[in-house]
Amino acid sequence: MQFDQGYDVIVVGGGHAGTEAAHAAARMGARTLLLTQSLESIGQMSCNPAIGGIGKGHLVREIDAMGGVMGRAADRAGIQFRTLNQRKGPAVQATRAQADRSLYRQAVRSLLDEVPALSLFQDTVHDLIVEHDEVRGVVTGMGLELRAAAVVLTVGTFLGGTIHIGDHNRRGGRAGDGPSIALAERLRAMPLRVGRLKTGTPPRIDAASIDYRSLNAQPGDDQPVYFSRWSRGDEHPRQVPCHITHTNADSHAIIRAALHRSPMYSGEIDGVGPRYCPSIEDKVVRFADRDGHQIFLEPEGLDTREVYPNGISTSLPFDVQIAMVRSIQGLEQAHVTRPGYAIEYDYLDPRDLHPSLESLQLPGLLLAGQINGTTGYEEAGAQGLLAGINAAARAGGLTPWVPQRHEAYIGVLVDDLTTRGTREPYRMFTSRAEYRLHLREDNADLRLMPVARAYGLISDAAWRDFATYRDAIEAERRRLEKTWIRPVDLGDDHGTRQLGQPLRREQSLMNLLKRPEMDYATLLSLPGAGPGPTDPAVCRQVLIGARYEGYLKRQSDQVARQARHEDEPLPVDLDYHSVAGLSAEVCEKLHHHRPATLGQAGRIPGVTPAAVSLLLVHLRRGRTRQSA
Amino acid sequence: MQFDQGYDVIVVGGGHAGTEAAHAAARMGARTLLLTQSLESIGQMSCNPAIGGIGKGHLVREIDAMGGVMGRAADRAGIQFRTLNQRKGPAVQATRAQADRSLYRQAVRSLLDEVPALSLFQDTVHDLIVEHDEVRGVVTGMGLELRAAAVVLTVGTFLGGTIHIGDHNRRGGRAGDGPSIALAERLRAMPLRVGRLKTGTPPRIDAASIDYRSLNAQPGDDQPVYFSRWSRGDEHPRQVPCHITHTNADSHAIIRAALHRSPMYSGEIDGVGPRYCPSIEDKVVRFADRDGHQIFLEPEGLDTREVYPNGISTSLPFDVQIAMVRSIQGLEQAHVTRPGYAIEYDYLDPRDLHPSLESLQLPGLLLAGQINGTTGYEEAGAQGLLAGINAAARAGGLTPWVPQRHEAYIGVLVDDLTTRGTREPYRMFTSRAEYRLHLREDNADLRLMPVARAYGLISDAAWRDFATYRDAIEAERRRLEKTWIRPVDLGDDHGTRQLGQPLRREQSLMNLLKRPEMDYATLLSLPGAGPGPTDPAVCRQVLIGARYEGYLKRQSDQVARQARHEDEPLPVDLDYHSVAGLSAEVCEKLHHHRPATLGQAGRIPGVTPAAVSLLLVHLRRGRTRQSA
Ligand SMILES: Cc1cc2nc3c(=O)[nH]c(=O)nc-3n(C[C@H](O)[C@H](O)[C@H](O)COP(=O)(O)OP(=O)(O)OC[C@H]3O[C@@H](n4cnc5c(N)ncnc54)[C@H](O)[C@@H]3O)c2cc1C
Ligand SMILES: Cc1cc2nc3c(=O)[nH]c(=O)nc-3n(C[C@H](O)[C@H](O)[C@H](O)COP(=O)(O)OP(=O)(O)OC[C@H]3O[C@@H](n4cnc5c(N)ncnc54)[C@H](O)[C@@H]3O)c2cc1C
Repeated sequence: MQFDQGYDVIVVGGGHAGTEAAHAAARMGARTLLLTQSLESIGQMSCNPAIGGIGKGHLVREIDAMGGVMGRAADRAGIQFRTLNQRKGPAVQATRAQADRSLYRQAVRSLLDEVPALSLFQDTVHDLIVEHDEVRGVVTGMGLELRAAAVVLTVGTFLGGTIHIGDHNRRGGRAGDGPSIALAERLRAMPLRVGRLKTGTPPRIDAASIDYRSLNAQPGDDQPVYFSRWSRGDEHPRQVPCHITHTNADSHAIIRAALHRSPMYSGEIDGVGPRYCPSIEDKVVRFADRDGHQIFLEPEGLDTREVYPNGISTSLPFDVQIAMVRSIQGLEQAHVTRPGYAIEYDYLDPRDLHPSLESLQLPGLLLAGQINGTTGYEEAGAQGLLAGINAAARAGGLTPWVPQRHEAYIGVLVDDLTTRGTREPYRMFTSRAEYRLHLREDNADLRLMPVARAYGLISDAAWRDFATYRDAIEAERRRLEKTWIRPVDLGDDHGTRQLGQPLRREQSLMNLLKRPEMDYATLLSLPGAGPGPTDPAVCRQVLIGARYEGYLKRQSDQVARQARHEDEPLPVDLDYHSVAGLSAEVCEKLHHHRPATLGQAGRIPGVTPAAVSLLLVHLRRGRTRQSA
Repeated sequence: MQFDQGYDVIVVGGGHAGTEAAHAAARMGARTLLLTQSLESIGQMSCNPAIGGIGKGHLVREIDAMGGVMGRAADRAGIQFRTLNQRKGPAVQATRAQADRSLYRQAVRSLLDEVPALSLFQDTVHDLIVEHDEVRGVVTGMGLELRAAAVVLTVGTFLGGTIHIGDHNRRGGRAGDGPSIALAERLRAMPLRVGRLKTGTPPRIDAASIDYRSLNAQPGDDQPVYFSRWSRGDEHPRQVPCHITHTNADSHAIIRAALHRSPMYSGEIDGVGPRYCPSIEDKVVRFADRDGHQIFLEPEGLDTREVYPNGISTSLPFDVQIAMVRSIQGLEQAHVTRPGYAIEYDYLDPRDLHPSLESLQLPGLLLAGQINGTTGYEEAGAQGLLAGINAAARAGGLTPWVPQRHEAYIGVLVDDLTTRGTREPYRMFTSRAEYRLHLREDNADLRLMPVARAYGLISDAAWRDFATYRDAIEAERRRLEKTWIRPVDLGDDHGTRQLGQPLRREQSLMNLLKRPEMDYATLLSLPGAGPGPTDPAVCRQVLIGARYEGYLKRQSDQVARQARHEDEPLPVDLDYHSVAGLSAEVCEKLHHHRPATLGQAGRIPGVTPAAVSLLLVHLRRGRTRQSA
C-alpha cells in the first residue's frame, strides 16, 4: 500500500536527532515526514533531564546558530540554568540547564508544528525500500510504503534493545517503550557493520520521601542565562535549586557485595558502556580507593515529585538498588518510583558513513544520533541537524554540508565518528577539539549563521539582525584601533586609578583592552573612549578577540597549515612498510585503516604528528621522483 | 523478591480509573501504590480529547464532589467549555470540555503528586498473588512481589489487546503502548468470566492541511464554565473554537466499497463495539438512508497542530481512511498524522462483582474502568473513585460505600453493571437514571459531599465552606417561605409590570418563585424581598427546588416505596413457575438470573414493574401462610 505522492525527506524517530533532522530539512523547504513510534513521546528525554554542559553546551549553541530546536526548547523548559567554568577561559565556558521533561517535550512539539513543510506520522518502521542499491523509502509496521529521496534513520537505543535490571531482562527501546526488532533484523541483513553498545540510567526517587534538611542546595545562576539567540528573554519557567548528597562507604559495601548479581559483571551484557558516564558499580570498581561519589538530586520538573539522582546510574538488582539508595544521606526513607536499568542496543559503525552522514554502502540513507554510537541528547541533536540538512540537500541537488574540525564541534563530532569510529558510546568534550579557542559557545552564531543562511535556514529578518550584530563588532574593533589616548588626556592620577599604573605613552584603545587587568567598562570610562556599543555581546566579542589575539592567530595558522595537507590524498595502494621511519605499530594501523587523506591518517589513534610528517615527506619524495 | 513493607492499597493502571482510585484511597490515608506501565502516560486520554457531556458531565461532578481528580484536571486543561441543553430542564443540563491532552496529563500528575500517602511506581503487573482464595498483592514483570490488603485492577483496553487497521493487526494496549498479555493469561486461568469487547478511534489530521475557510466555527460558551467546586476560576488556559464539517455521499460510497476490507465486517473482530459511539462504517451501514454525518474538528491541544475529527472512528484499511477523509469538505488536502484503528480486548463480566466493585470470587480484588465492560473516561473515573474508596475501606476495616440509584449516577452505573452485566461497551446516559431530577450536575456536591466527608475525603476547611453553602440554601428557603408580600405593598401597576399580572392576594416569596415565569432577580426586586443571598449557586438551588417541587416530591416518594421493597429477599429456591401470573419469558429470566432481592429482580431487562408486583404478592402470601 503506498501512501501519498512521496516525500523529499523521511526522518525515522522522534528523539533528539530525529526532531532536529526533520526541522532542518523542512525549513530548507523539503517536504518532510517525521515518522515515529508514538507522537506522544516526541522530544522525550530518555535519561537525565538536562541539556548542555561542557562540550555539550557548545553543540547546543551550534545547533541554535543553524536555526535548530534544542536551544529554544531548553530555554522554554529549563528550570535551572548555570554557566559552568565561569572563572576559566571563554573556550571552556559552557551553559547547562536542568529541564522540566514535560515542558521540554511540549516545546519541541510546538517548534516542529511551526514548520509548514513538516508532517508527522505515527507508525513503526520495519524495513527500508532499497532499489538499485539506493534507499528509496521505508515500509512501516502497518504495511505502508513511504517513498522519499532521502531517509534519515534516528532510532536511538531502540534497535534490538534489551533492558537489564539485575538478572532480569526483557526487550524494550527504553523503559515504557517497545524495542525495534523487525528493523534491527533487516539492518543486520544489509551490508552494514553492526555492533552492540549499552548505556544506563539511575532509579528515580519520590521527592516527598527525601529528607532535604541535611542536604546542601545548589541554586542556578542569579543572572538569567539563555541558550538561544532566538529567545526573547522571558521564556524561562520558574527556577528551582538542586541538592547535593554523596554515596558513602556503606553504599559501596552494598554494591560490592552484589557485584556478582550485576548483569555487567556476570557476563549478561556484552555491549560496551559509556566510559565518561559510568554506572555507580563501575565507579566503585574503577575508583576502589574513593569512599564517596557526589550525587545531584535534580527535580524532573516543576509539577512532579520525581527526582533524578544524577550519579547513580545502575543495573544492579532492584533490591540492591533500594538498599544502596537508602544508604545515602537524605535518602534513608526514599521511595523509588522507577528502577534504574541498563539497555543494550545495536549501533551501526559510523566509519561506514560519509562525513555528510550518508551511508557509504546505501546512498539515500543517512544516519544520526545514538544509532551512530554516540550518547547524549546534544550529540544526537547535532548529528540530526547535519543529517537533516544533507538529506534536504540530496533531495534538492545541493552540495552536502561537511563542517570542518576548526569550524564547529559538529565538525569534530562527525570527523571523529566517520574516521575513527567508536568502540564505546561517544560523547563530546572540549578536549576533543584542536581549535578550542575558535570553537566557543559565544561565537557559535558568528561561525555558523552564514552557513545556515546559505542553506536557507535563516529568515531575512533574522539575517538582518545578525548582520547588524556582526557589523557592530567589526565597527567597534576598528573604532578601538583608531582611537588613541595620550598620557596628557589622563593625567597621572587618573591613569593610575583606572589603569592600575600611569600611561607612559600614547596607546590605542585596542591595545589598552589587551591588558589582562582591563575590562570593558573601565576602558569606556576613559576620556574620549565612550560611549561604545550598547549590546554587551558586541563588547564581549571584541574583548575576547583582543585578549586572546595571539592564541587565536596561532590556531588560525595551524588550521591553514593543516588545511594545506588535510586533503593531500594517500594512494590506495601505498605500501606503508616502504615509508622510512614509521614504527611497526603505526604501519599496522595505517595498513588497517587505509586513510584516504593525510588529514584522516593523522586522526587515527596512535598515529603521531611525527608519523604524519614522515608520510608527507614520503609523498613529496614520490612526487619529485615522478616528476623527475 | 519482595519490595518494602507492603501497602494498604495497590492500584494497577494509571488511566482514568486508576488515577481516581489511587487518589481517593490515599486521601483516605491508606498507604497506596499506583503501579503502571509508564509513568509518562499517567492520565493519558486514549481517544477523544474531551471530558463531560450529557450523563458523563454528571459523573464528573459526582467525582468532583467526592474530592476526585477529573473535574479539576479538566478545568486546568480545558480549551473549550460548553453547557449543553441550556434550554432544557436542569436534570439534563451538562458540562462538556474539550481538553488539551498534554495539559490534562500534567494536571492529573500534579494532583496525584499533592497526596502524601500516594506513591508511584513504573512496572507492568504480570500476576496476582492469591493466598487462601484472597488476593494479597501483585507480581510485576521485573519479578517484584508487592503486597497489599486490597488490589484495584484498572488496566483498561490493555488485556490481551489487539489493534486492527483493515486486515492488518498487531498486539497493543493502545496505539504506541504494548498490550498486557501475561496478566490477561493469568486472569483467564482464574475463576472469572472473561469476554471480548472492542472500541475504535478516528485518524488524526494535521490542522495545517485543513481548509478552514469553508467550515463553520463553533466557539465555547461566553461565560466561563467550571467542572469543579475546587477550582478558583482562573484555571482555564486559552480557549479555542471547534469546526464542523460532514461526511457526504462520496464518503459513504468510498466506505461501502471497502466494507469487505473492514475487520469488523470481514469477521476478523469478534468483540462487540459501543452502540452509542459507532464507527463511521457502522453508521453508514446502520443508517443507510442518511447521506451525511456531522464531524467536529476538535483541536488536540493549544500547542499542537493535530486535530481530532470527532465522528469518524474507523478501522478501515489506511488507504480507505485517507480517501474517505479527503472526500470531506475542508479535508480535501488533509494530511493524516495517525491512522484510525479498532482495538479488541478482554473484559471481566461485572456481574462477578459486589456493588462495591470487589470481586465475588476473589476477595481483596477490586475492578474498575474499561475492564468492567464500560467505555469512556468518566465512567472509568467514577468506578475508579468507588473502587479506591472501597479498597481503602477494606484495608481500614470500614463499611464499603455502595451508592444507590437515587443518590448518584455512580450508583446507577455500578448497579447496572453488577446486576445486569453488559454485552457491549457500557456508557452513561441520563435516561439510565430513574430519578434524573434528583441526580443533577448542580447538586452533586449536596448529594455526595456528606458521604465524602464521612470517608475522610474532605478537609475541615472545605467542609466548613460546604456547610456554609448548605446552610445558606436552607436559610434562604425558610426566608422565602416566611416572607409574605401583600397586594398593597406592590400597587397594581408595579405588580403587573414585575409579575406579569396584578397580585390578587397575599403570597409568600416561595410561592411567587414557583411561578414558571418568575426569575430570582425579579423576585428580589420586589419591595421587602431583597437583598437575598450573594452566592448565585444558592439562588439556583432554591429556584430549582421551588420550581420542580412537585416532581421532586413524586420521585422521592417513589424512592421511598422502592426502598421498602428493594431489599426484600427472594428465597434462593423460589420456584418462579409457582408465582401466579408471571409470563413464561419472565419466569425464564428470573430462573436464569436468580436475583437475590426484589430490587435486583426489577432491574433484570424484561422484568416489568407488574411482574415485580406479582412477586411481591407471592412473597406476602407465602409469609402469611407460614405465619398462619
Ligand atoms: C536508559 C538510557 C540511559 C541513557 N543514559 C545516558 C547518559 O547517561 N548520558 C547521556 O548523555 N545519554 C544517555 N542516554 C542517551 C540519550 O537518551 C540519547 O543519547 C538520546 O536520546 C539519543 O537521541 P536519538 O535521537 O538518537 O534517539 P532517541 O532519543 O532514543 O529517539 C529514538 C526515537 O526513534 C523512535 N523509534 C525507534 N524505532 C523506531 C522505528 N522502527 N520506527 C519509528 N520510530 C522509531 C523512538 O520512538 C524514538 O522517538 C541514555 C538513554 C537511555 C535509553
Ligand atoms: C482506540 C480506543 C478508542 C476509544 N474510543 C472511545 C470512544 O469512542 N468513546 C469513549 O467514551 N471512550 C473510548 N475509549 C475508551 C477510553 O479511552 C476508556 O474508557 C478509558 O481510557 C478507560 O479508562 P481506564 O482507566 O479503564 O483504562 P485506560 O485509560 O486504558 O488505562 C489503563 C492503564 O493501565 C495501564 N496498564 C495496562 N496493563 C497494565 C499492567 N499489566 N500493569 C500495569 N499497568 C498496566 C496502562 O498503561 C494504562 O495506564 C477508547 C479507547 C481506545 C484505546
